[in-house]
Amino acid sequence: MEHLSSVKRRKTKKINLGYVQIGGNAPVVVQSMTNTDTRDVKATIAQIKALEKAGCEIVRVALPDKKAVDALPQIKERIKIPLIADIHFDYRLAIDAIKKGVAGIRINPGNIAKDKICQIIKVAREHETVIRIGVNSGSLQKDLLRKYGGATAGALVESALRNIELFENQGFEKIKLSLKSSDVPTMIEAYRAISARTDYPLHLGVTEAGSLVNAAIKSALGIGTLLYEGIGDTIRVSVTGSPVQEIPVAYGILRALNIRKIGPDIVSCPTCGRCEIDVLDLTAKIEKALAREKGYLKIALMGCVVNGPGEAADADIGIAGGKKQGIIFKKGKAFKKIKEQDFVKVLLEEINLMIKERKKN
Amino acid sequence: MEHLSSVKRRKTKKINLGYVQIGGNAPVVVQSMTNTDTRDVKATIAQIKALEKAGCEIVRVALPDKKAVDALPQIKERIKIPLIADIHFDYRLAIDAIKKGVAGIRINPGNIAKDKICQIIKVAREHETVIRIGVNSGSLQKDLLRKYGGATAGALVESALRNIELFENQGFEKIKLSLKSSDVPTMIEAYRAISARTDYPLHLGVTEAGSLVNAAIKSALGIGTLLYEGIGDTIRVSVTGSPVQEIPVAYGILRALNIRKIGPDIVSCPTCGRCEIDVLDLTAKIEKALAREKGYLKIALMGCVVNGPGEAADADIGIAGGKKQGIIFKKGKAFKKIKEQDFVKVLLEEINLMIKERKKN
Repeated sequence: MEHLSSVKRRKTKKINLGYVQIGGNAPVVVQSMTNTDTRDVKATIAQIKALEKAGCEIVRVALPDKKAVDALPQIKERIKIPLIADIHFDYRLAIDAIKKGVAGIRINPGNIAKDKICQIIKVAREHETVIRIGVNSGSLQKDLLRKYGGATAGALVESALRNIELFENQGFEKIKLSLKSSDVPTMIEAYRAISARTDYPLHLGVTEAGSLVNAAIKSALGIGTLLYEGIGDTIRVSVTGSPVQEIPVAYGILRALNIRKIGPDIVSCPTCGRCEIDVLDLTAKIEKALAREKGYLKIALMGCVVNGPGEAADADIGIAGGKKQGIIFKKGKAFKKIKEQDFVKVLLEEINLMIKERKKN
Repeated sequence: MEHLSSVKRRKTKKINLGYVQIGGNAPVVVQSMTNTDTRDVKATIAQIKALEKAGCEIVRVALPDKKAVDALPQIKERIKIPLIADIHFDYRLAIDAIKKGVAGIRINPGNIAKDKICQIIKVAREHETVIRIGVNSGSLQKDLLRKYGGATAGALVESALRNIELFENQGFEKIKLSLKSSDVPTMIEAYRAISARTDYPLHLGVTEAGSLVNAAIKSALGIGTLLYEGIGDTIRVSVTGSPVQEIPVAYGILRALNIRKIGPDIVSCPTCGRCEIDVLDLTAKIEKALAREKGYLKIALMGCVVNGPGEAADADIGIAGGKKQGIIFKKGKAFKKIKEQDFVKVLLEEINLMIKERKKN
């Protein structure tokens, strides 16, 4: 029920990241990254728990130094979702993290030398740890920047291909790839190109996408365009702000493309000079009440008779407003006429009932 | 300078809506719609002025009755951008609005009969008024809903094609088309299909897209996917809330796809356990200070040395943070090392200087 794709997804190799399957026929997995100081175990666990509650399925933490590595076992023990360690520059931190039992590590080929990566691979093989080759427009190898005249899609792809070859030469295939850019068209082109060349699972993201609304725009454009083409096995929306905000945006993208239907889809009109009820207030209240709801339901909140009855009837539950009153529709049929002051109460009662029924089935 | 497209746009017929050109080689035009009571002239003018200030280029008002029509001349007189009247059900309101001198009208083929549309066309021809054939998933003709089993892309396309034929039979070609759906994949498929069949300019929108963040997601997905394919001549982001919020989202989509570069592009990192400066606070302050800025500039606000120097150097101006300090980069070169308490002040000084210089050129 949850995973109804309208999109024909490209087939990729399957890898297991802890208990989470990525690639193959698995649903597109939603991940995030903490922005606490990893050495602050309490704060990091609290943020991961908030992420889990919001629906995050994999979490990554930065490992700037040895103290952060030492915090990993305590963090891992207290959380449910698989833990990934994010490492730059120092290959020894990567090896230590693997030994501490993380499900996966992310390394950046732009800042770890080939021979050091080979040492990481050796330990990862022993521990069956997944490695993400995380190419990023902000940290490409200098020779590639020179060759391509900047962090172009071509440069990102060549960086990834070089590393794939390195990993394959070591007989290591538990890898996923990311080719993130802060420029949306560059990111789209890079993923399209790498997707045509390899079948390793792909982690999609627009890097450094900015604060909430801008991040939602750039991520929907970049991640969404690719997902709609069937490309992408796991995603991260990157928001300057609390990472917990990233999760509803990620599910919003998946829901709007009918890739994963988690959480209510609220269709609400922008209102206009024709509107006779307070749709803005109604939408804000319904959204707030359902902010933590994971059950899917299409809810239409409409202000007038132009599109109101059509949209309300097309939704699982909807209301079409008129003069200080409205008609509730349930599964396409007019159900009840109610006064405006009862909108929130009656709608929430009916919505909760429908969600409960769905969960039973 | 402003209109640098990385996208090969599909060629469409050119129409003039007041002084604004739509289609042909014109830039993608940003429009919105008031949600005031159109009969409240003062409130409607105030909202349109706020929309103009935000960068809105065409505005639409709802005309539910004759009193709203009578308000049109007073509204038109006080605003700068072309005015469009939105009419449903009553063809006489459309005819009256045309006579009052609006630049364009939008009619809904789902709720005005053929013979009445012919009467509207006759008057529009005399006044050289543009007509948008505005098909909407919430108000399709009943026979089409029956034929297609719902508001599918096929049903939207057939509704549009029927009307195009009607208009062409009357020798009227000053038309633009919209085929909006609240369902993103349906909307994408409908516009792709109509775009392959006609070359009238297309107005893109995901209808009833919800409150700000959800509207940003759905609109970026629907409008953005099409724009990136070269489809679309004018757009509206539909937000449940103040329509003024729609404008930065619209320009955010255009900017991220390199279609129109208006307003600053802020690249800022999500921060992580590696971050040593307060990127969240910095981003919020820079965004707020530049909220009304129309000049384009790529600004990178980065928290650490991993992607910081790369992104900062790639931007027009950027900062790469370190321990309570940062290096400002200008046009790819390290420019100044400053303390964290001076970030906002120094960055804004330099940004304003750069924007001023650009405007001179």
